[in-house]
Amino acid sequence: MSAQVTFDTYRGAEGDVPVRKTVTRQLRPNDVFIEITHSGVCGTDLHFRHSDITLGHEGIGRVKEVGSAVTGYKVGDVVGFGYIRQVCGDCEWCLTGWDQYCSKAVAYGYTDFDTGSFSEGAVLDARCVFHIPDEIDPADAAPLMCGGATVWTVLDQYGIKPTDRVAIMGIGGLGHLAIKMAAAMGCHVVVLSSSESKREEALKFGAKEFHVFRQGEKFEGKMEPINHLLLCGSAAVDYDALIPLMAPNGTIYPLTVDFNPSKLVMFHVAAKGIRIQGSVVISTSEMRKMLQFCARHKITPQIEKFPLNETGMSDAMRRLTDGKVRYRAVLVAQN
Amino acid sequence: MSAQVTFDTYRGAEGDVPVRKTVTRQLRPNDVFIEITHSGVCGTDLHFRHSDITLGHEGIGRVKEVGSAVTGYKVGDVVGFGYIRQVCGDCEWCLTGWDQYCSKAVAYGYTDFDTGSFSEGAVLDARCVFHIPDEIDPADAAPLMCGGATVWTVLDQYGIKPTDRVAIMGIGGLGHLAIKMAAAMGCHVVVLSSSESKREEALKFGAKEFHVFRQGEKFEGKMEPINHLLLCGSAAVDYDALIPLMAPNGTIYPLTVDFNPSKLVMFHVAAKGIRIQGSVVISTSEMRKMLQFCARHKITPQIEKFPLNETGMSDAMRRLTDGKVRYRAVLVAQN
Repeated sequence: MSAQVTFDTYRGAEGDVPVRKTVTRQLRPNDVFIEITHSGVCGTDLHFRHSDITLGHEGIGRVKEVGSAVTGYKVGDVVGFGYIRQVCGDCEWCLTGWDQYCSKAVAYGYTDFDTGSFSEGAVLDARCVFHIPDEIDPADAAPLMCGGATVWTVLDQYGIKPTDRVAIMGIGGLGHLAIKMAAAMGCHVVVLSSSESKREEALKFGAKEFHVFRQGEKFEGKMEPINHLLLCGSAAVDYDALIPLMAPNGTIYPLTVDFNPSKLVMFHVAAKGIRIQGSVVISTSEMRKMLQFCARHKITPQIEKFPLNETGMSDAMRRLTDGKVRYRAVLVAQN
Repeated sequence: MSAQVTFDTYRGAEGDVPVRKTVTRQLRPNDVFIEITHSGVCGTDLHFRHSDITLGHEGIGRVKEVGSAVTGYKVGDVVGFGYIRQVCGDCEWCLTGWDQYCSKAVAYGYTDFDTGSFSEGAVLDARCVFHIPDEIDPADAAPLMCGGATVWTVLDQYGIKPTDRVAIMGIGGLGHLAIKMAAAMGCHVVVLSSSESKREEALKFGAKEFHVFRQGEKFEGKMEPINHLLLCGSAAVDYDALIPLMAPNGTIYPLTVDFNPSKLVMFHVAAKGIRIQGSVVISTSEMRKMLQFCARHKITPQIEKFPLNETGMSDAMRRLTDGKVRYRAVLVAQN
């Protein structure tokens, strides 16, 4: 006999303030019920803020109930979840460490889009949930579940080596974590920023070089070529201006969510053997590795805290819209 | 005391017919002098046909003289050369199998652009020259030196596996060799062509599937997703139309020489983990592997022969411009 749970969620709405909705769910045998203590606020939440779905996909909380078939989690465990997809476990991608591409995955919010981290609780299949290591403060863990995961996947799954020169363009929620992670991996980290003002912070995060680079301006900085370039900014990108910065065989990772067409002269890409590598969601295996790596290297995001309620969400999203968050907003449950 | 050699070359000119120019060269210690017997005609020669340089970069011939320090070649050897660059042998790229990216390489035509395969002869550093295996007819070897090399590099150097579905878009000089090579590598080869008329030939070359795919039209063909897509056609490419054909983690290789900006929605690239992989020139090591592989698998281009003189060059380039060559033109010395 499975438990029934009731909790309030916050959904996107016409106005700028998410609206509260009470949800009742039956736990299926493989489900866990999590009481959410923290939620990160991601740029994607701004995209969906007017959609009728529960917002948030950087959730941290405590397990409150487990379904009858769950063996990996027990009541009281601190767990997290990111972008939710229940993978099939049996396709080519699931079997080879790339389950982010499972074509049979059940994606975000399987029941009426009522599962998200802007919420008092969440009911999820246990395979969508991750143990948070004791070494990581739950508030710090929240931004790892999407922002951290996005940059980690690129750093760990596409052949970046500790001997490579890895450049991060744009210091924000993703970029500042990318600097810390790449530095901890032993890479020579180069930061490209539109503003001199972030130099000191970038070096503190672990960068070895800092260069001011503005789109549309000629880059005057003397710089050795770079092997990997993570585009972590929010602005549209002039790819032709980036290719001269790259070493032969170098890879550019466009992590900015950009639905407008980018322009690219393919002969320039070809002549230097440049790779443009897309990546967006993390695999189950990589999420676990990232959490262990961050625990071991004490990698934490720099966060601003807001209460996990309508006011806090609205304030956090306003600061995020204005580009003021340094560097990731975290909503904290008030009880 | 080094030999002095004199021979005629054919250079690009204002009109459509290359012009003859007599060249005299002193052999340096590491040089070989080749009497050219065959030259392929490549699309790149059309680009340069009005430039004052010796045309041709798919040369086959017999060694006639060797410099005092040359040990790897002797008079009478059948050798070939492609796009000429004398690499440094000591940089990161030279030392790791990627000498096509040697930044210190001396590129095409080091003396007044007088080295090319539209010529009676060529003087080259011995490191720019390749032994042609006995199993390959010299006329068939010529198109391998650039057209074959271009597709081989993609097939062998970027992780394509025999279990992958490899698609070739565009059956021409490059495409028809790509089909044969990928089939010999054990891949499942899919051909995408704008015209039904090439179906039979594509299957004969080794393709297992053939689909008509026209830019700008909706693709109605039922097809399993593809892992690697080689763009071998001459037309501009609509990348957004190609992404739905790809499997997650799939790679698109733009081999068409295209200086116009292509448009690409980076979020579509990211969402599926698509890779755009540039590649243009072959490494020394891969050129040798390709020649051995083609000899072992009896891979030959389908060629049309023309005399290696002004009339032959002019005729071959006209047919190439008109898209009529099936599938690679080869100039043959007449003496």
